[in-house]
Amino acid sequence: VHGGAWAIPDECAKACVDGVKVAAQEGFSVLTRGGSALDAVEAAVRNLEDNTVFNARGATLNADGEVELDAIIMDGRTLASGAVSSVKNIANPVSLARAVMEKTDHMILTSRGANLFAESVGVASIPTEALVSAYERTEWEKHKNYATGVKEDFNSAHDTVGAVTVDCAGNVACATSTGGIRNKMAGRVGDSPVICGGYADNCSGAVSCTGHGESILKVTLARLIISHVEQKTVAEASQLSLQYMAERVHGAGGAILVSPSGRWAATFSTDRMAWAAVDREGLWYGLDPNERH
Amino acid sequence: VHGGAWAIPDECAKACVDGVKVAAQEGFSVLTRGGSALDAVEAAVRNLEDNTVFNARGATLNADGEVELDAIIMDGRTLASGAVSSVKNIANPVSLARAVMEKTDHMILTSRGANLFAESVGVASIPTEALVSAYERTEWEKHKNYATGVKEDFNSAHDTVGAVTVDCAGNVACATSTGGIRNKMAGRVGDSPVICGGYADNCSGAVSCTGHGESILKVTLARLIISHVEQKTVAEASQLSLQYMAERVHGAGGAILVSPSGRWAATFSTDRMAWAAVDREGLWYGLDPNERH
Repeated sequence: VHGGAWAIPDECAKACVDGVKVAAQEGFSVLTRGGSALDAVEAAVRNLEDNTVFNARGATLNADGEVELDAIIMDGRTLASGAVSSVKNIANPVSLARAVMEKTDHMILTSRGANLFAESVGVASIPTEALVSAYERTEWEKHKNYATGVKEDFNSAHDTVGAVTVDCAGNVACATSTGGIRNKMAGRVGDSPVICGGYADNCSGAVSCTGHGESILKVTLARLIISHVEQKTVAEASQLSLQYMAERVHGAGGAILVSPSGRWAATFSTDRMAWAAVDREGLWYGLDPNERH
Repeated sequence: VHGGAWAIPDECAKACVDGVKVAAQEGFSVLTRGGSALDAVEAAVRNLEDNTVFNARGATLNADGEVELDAIIMDGRTLASGAVSSVKNIANPVSLARAVMEKTDHMILTSRGANLFAESVGVASIPTEALVSAYERTEWEKHKNYATGVKEDFNSAHDTVGAVTVDCAGNVACATSTGGIRNKMAGRVGDSPVICGGYADNCSGAVSCTGHGESILKVTLARLIISHVEQKTVAEASQLSLQYMAERVHGAGGAILVSPSGRWAATFSTDRMAWAAVDREGLWYGLDPNERH
C-alpha cells in the first residue's frame, strides 16, 4: 500500500508510516481469512480512506471549497474495473467504485451521476465537515489561488492512497483513492479514477500510482509500468517508467507494483512516499529513498 | 477520420461516408493552409460534431433523457491533452477540451465543473433539443431500459467521431468526441475523454478509438496500439490490438492510426466503420471490411 508520494513534512512522517503499516496488515488479514485480492485491496484502501492523516478522509478542498473524490478498483482476472470521479461527500469512494464495477454495465460514473448511483445502492452521504480536517481548511484559505498555489504547493497537497495485491490463486487487484489537488478547479479529474493511474492484469501484475495526476495521465504511467514488467524486474519497470515521466513531461510521482508471482516494488521520484508491504517474510515499510525496514 | 464503428444500417451508410469524406478534407485543408496537426484534428472533429448524422450533434440521450458529451484532444509534441466528460449542451466539446488543455493547469474537467469552465471562457450553452435528432428521441423512447437495451442496441447506439493527423513538421495529434451510449446512466463516462481512448506521441503516432468504451478502457486500446506500432506496421498494430480486445474482454471496436512518417490505417472489428483519409495520393474512404476507395 502507499499513502501518497510527495514532500511529506517531518511532523506527519510517523503518522503516515504508521497508517500505511496498519493498512497493509489489514489487507493481508483479509487474504489470510480467505478473501480475494479484490477484497484485500478494498479493505486496505478503506482503512487508508478512514485515516485522517491521508487525503481521503482528510480530503483537500477544491477552488469552490468543496470536496470531490476520485477512486478506482480493478480486477486482474477479468480486467473489469469500476471508478467514480468528482463524487461528493462519500466516506469510502473505493467501495462505491466497486459497486460501479459489480452493479452497473459501466466503468466510470462521474459527479452527480455518481452521487445518484450512491443513493440508489444505499451509500450514505456525509457532511463536508466530516471529510475535511481543520489543518486542510487553514491551508486552503492560505492557497486560494490554484495558479500560484500549485507551484509552491504541489509537493504538499496531493496525497493519494492506494493498494495492490496478489492472492494465493494468483489473482492480482489494485485500488486507488484520492481527494485530488488542493484548490483544483471544480470538476477536475486526475489520474486516480482513470485506468492509466492504476492497472491490474493477471498476466502481468497490478499497479497503483500517485503523484502529479496530469503527468501520470500523459505517460499512462500504470500501463507503462505494466508493459515494462513483461521484460524487466518489478523495481526496474517502476524506476524506468518514473524516469521516463520525469524526462518526458517533468513530472514526479510514485508507484507500487506486484507481479502475479508475488514480487513487489515501491518506487518514487518525489522526496518521500509512505509505503508498506506484507509478504511471506513479514511486514516491510519505508518513507525516504532507499529506506526499507 | 472516423465516424464510429458499429453495425451502420444501410439507410445511414451513404450519409456517414459522405460525412467522413467532408471532415477529412476539412482537416486536410487546415494543414495545407499552414495549420498545425492540433488545428487540423480540431477542425475535422468540429465538422463531424456539427453533422447530425453522427453521435455528437445528433447525440444520444442518457437514462434521464439528458445529453452528456465526452471529448479529448491530445498534442503529440508535448503529450499535453485536454478533455471534458459528461459536459451538457455544448455544440463543440472538442474545442472545449482544447481550452481545458490550453487555459487550465488540468487535463480533465467533468460535469458541472466543465460547464462552469465553458461559461468562464465564453462557450455558449445550446438547448438539448438542438443536440438531439427526432430519430434519436424515438429510439430512446423505445429503449428506455439500458440493461435490456444495451445488448440488442449496442451495435446501433454509439457513434463516436475522431480524427488523427500528422503535419509537415512531423507533429501528430488526435481528437475524439461522443455522446456515449444511448440510455447510459447519468454521469457515465466512456473511453473517449480518457487518454486510453485516444493517444498522440510524436515518438510513435496518434490513435483515435471507437466502439464499446468499457472494453476499450479495459485493454487501454489506444496505448496498446501505440506500444505495438513501435515494432509492427500500422495495420498490424491496430489489428493485433483489436484482436486482443476481442479475445480478452469480448469487445468490438475500431481505431484510426497515423505514424509520424505518415503511414496510416483504419481498422475495425465491428460490422462497419465509416472512415476517410487524405494523404499525398488523395482521398481514401471505406465502410465495410476491406473496402478501400
